[in-house]
Amino acid sequence: MNAQLADPMPASQRALSAHAMAYASVGNVAVGFDILGHSVAGAGDRAVVRRIDEPTVRIAAVHGLVTDLPLDPARNTAGAALLSLRRALGLQHGFEVELHKGIALGSGMGGSAASCVAALVAANALLERPLPREALYGFALDGEVVASGSRHGDNLGPMLLGGLVLATRDRLLRLPVPNAWYCALVHPHVVLETRESRAVLASGFALGDVVAQHGNLALVLTGCHRGDASLVREGLKDVLVEPRRAPLVPGFSRVKQAALDHHALGASISGGGPSMFGWYENRGDAERAAEAMAAAFAEDGIASDRLVSPINGPAATLLDEETA
Amino acid sequence: MNAQLADPMPASQRALSAHAMAYASVGNVAVGFDILGHSVAGAGDRAVVRRIDEPTVRIAAVHGLVTDLPLDPARNTAGAALLSLRRALGLQHGFEVELHKGIALGSGMGGSAASCVAALVAANALLERPLPREALYGFALDGEVVASGSRHGDNLGPMLLGGLVLATRDRLLRLPVPNAWYCALVHPHVVLETRESRAVLASGFALGDVVAQHGNLALVLTGCHRGDASLVREGLKDVLVEPRRAPLVPGFSRVKQAALDHHALGASISGGGPSMFGWYENRGDAERAAEAMAAAFAEDGIASDRLVSPINGPAATLLDEETA
Repeated sequence: MNAQLADPMPASQRALSAHAMAYASVGNVAVGFDILGHSVAGAGDRAVVRRIDEPTVRIAAVHGLVTDLPLDPARNTAGAALLSLRRALGLQHGFEVELHKGIALGSGMGGSAASCVAALVAANALLERPLPREALYGFALDGEVVASGSRHGDNLGPMLLGGLVLATRDRLLRLPVPNAWYCALVHPHVVLETRESRAVLASGFALGDVVAQHGNLALVLTGCHRGDASLVREGLKDVLVEPRRAPLVPGFSRVKQAALDHHALGASISGGGPSMFGWYENRGDAERAAEAMAAAFAEDGIASDRLVSPINGPAATLLDEETA
Repeated sequence: MNAQLADPMPASQRALSAHAMAYASVGNVAVGFDILGHSVAGAGDRAVVRRIDEPTVRIAAVHGLVTDLPLDPARNTAGAALLSLRRALGLQHGFEVELHKGIALGSGMGGSAASCVAALVAANALLERPLPREALYGFALDGEVVASGSRHGDNLGPMLLGGLVLATRDRLLRLPVPNAWYCALVHPHVVLETRESRAVLASGFALGDVVAQHGNLALVLTGCHRGDASLVREGLKDVLVEPRRAPLVPGFSRVKQAALDHHALGASISGGGPSMFGWYENRGDAERAAEAMAAAFAEDGIASDRLVSPINGPAATLLDEETA
């Protein structure tokens, strides 16, 4: 974050390529639809970005869990973000991007956001004057909208800053969470497209539900600020969106109950689903819950992956070139 | 608040009557419809409550700004609250209540809530073992519902605890606010019934507006927790309810602009209206704003009263008997 204060580096000494990783994230976090998310250690997308002389952005290749992404930069989340960065800064040079997908698309773990953030963090490292992380947010939103059709930062924010992040239209704010608190995140091997899971939200919401959700959000935020688990436990319930999306997640009720059965602070759908998450006051509960949630999916014959991570998960990081 | 720990007082030594005042409040506070409010010094309702041998609640008289309130205790907000208190505690004795209304009904300043809280605080002082303030909340909600048809605590909460309070269905939480921050509250002499101003909220709300309001609420809460005026200024905007209620408040746009023109953190309708409020970082701005808001109402030929109070306004208090 001090990069903004550094002297510009002579072009001859600047790296020609950079490699970054952005981690998975839990979007919405039950009470903050489109505005609240946290990062999750253990899975992520990587991007290798090269500075090129042509004034353009090229998606050179997509490897890993997903390979059939659009190579047209305007239709690729990483490409669109870098196009936006180039335009805003008036860069003479362009970028070539190679993506390594470690997060499945349509998983509810921020797969599109992770490619976008990894590419931006790598490209940023190649700039004469790298920008602070918060300043990448607008470009990231320009990328996210290509994937989901909506400018929402609840995955992008925590990937850029790490931990639990409030992401409004214009701003990212990292929120305090006790380091001891953990998340269990279980990804069933079924695909739920973000656009599909947004379609069920098209019709209006009743005032009573909106007010209840407001109250829950306020309890969770206040509980996090105070490190008071009882407030979070009281508030971490989605009464607005979850009832509409639950039918889209196979085995929803059983998996949620498995999550709650291990002293959860709360449990719900991660992002647009079908992944499910729970919050816990310690690592042990989170690990037992993840196992039970995976077992619950398995009752429907659905295989799954599980991640257990501090809620204060990692921010996107630059990696050594060699690890590409 | 230590009353809950005190030894019971022998009946022979206990007072037979008590006198309490509950102050006005700003409900909703733009971003917390039905869940966020703060108390306001300078106006309030008073209640004198006497312990009587009959196992009942009587409203003996209503004086002051309003006199035509129902005397049937089940239809009177103070009466209903005391009936609920009697029932819950299994009290043998009853209460007789005399109300002194200092807050106009239908003003958006919590007039019904204030009578209810003043009566409860006075009655509580007559109990063998007085309850802590938070424990009166449920009885207060039973009273509020008689007046407004809705169980909402955004006026009751700040009246019971003082200052800015988050009032969910089951819980009150006082939120930190810098002592230097002030509110300007201007009450035009027109009546807007709570039930009328709720009717415009019957139809559903669009997801985009709900999300924007969530974000604003989160910014205000985080700004208050951090004492960061810039976050509050960014978030203190009602995009959900104000657009529907603005047409019910005469001169709304002009008055709001007058409030904003004095370095406001934000401005909106107080409670169900027609009173309008603004938040400021110091008393001087709040005083100038209150004057300008009153002048804006006057352009429509509407007289008004104005209050200028710390956002950390007072909690309901017991008064000396003599001041009744």
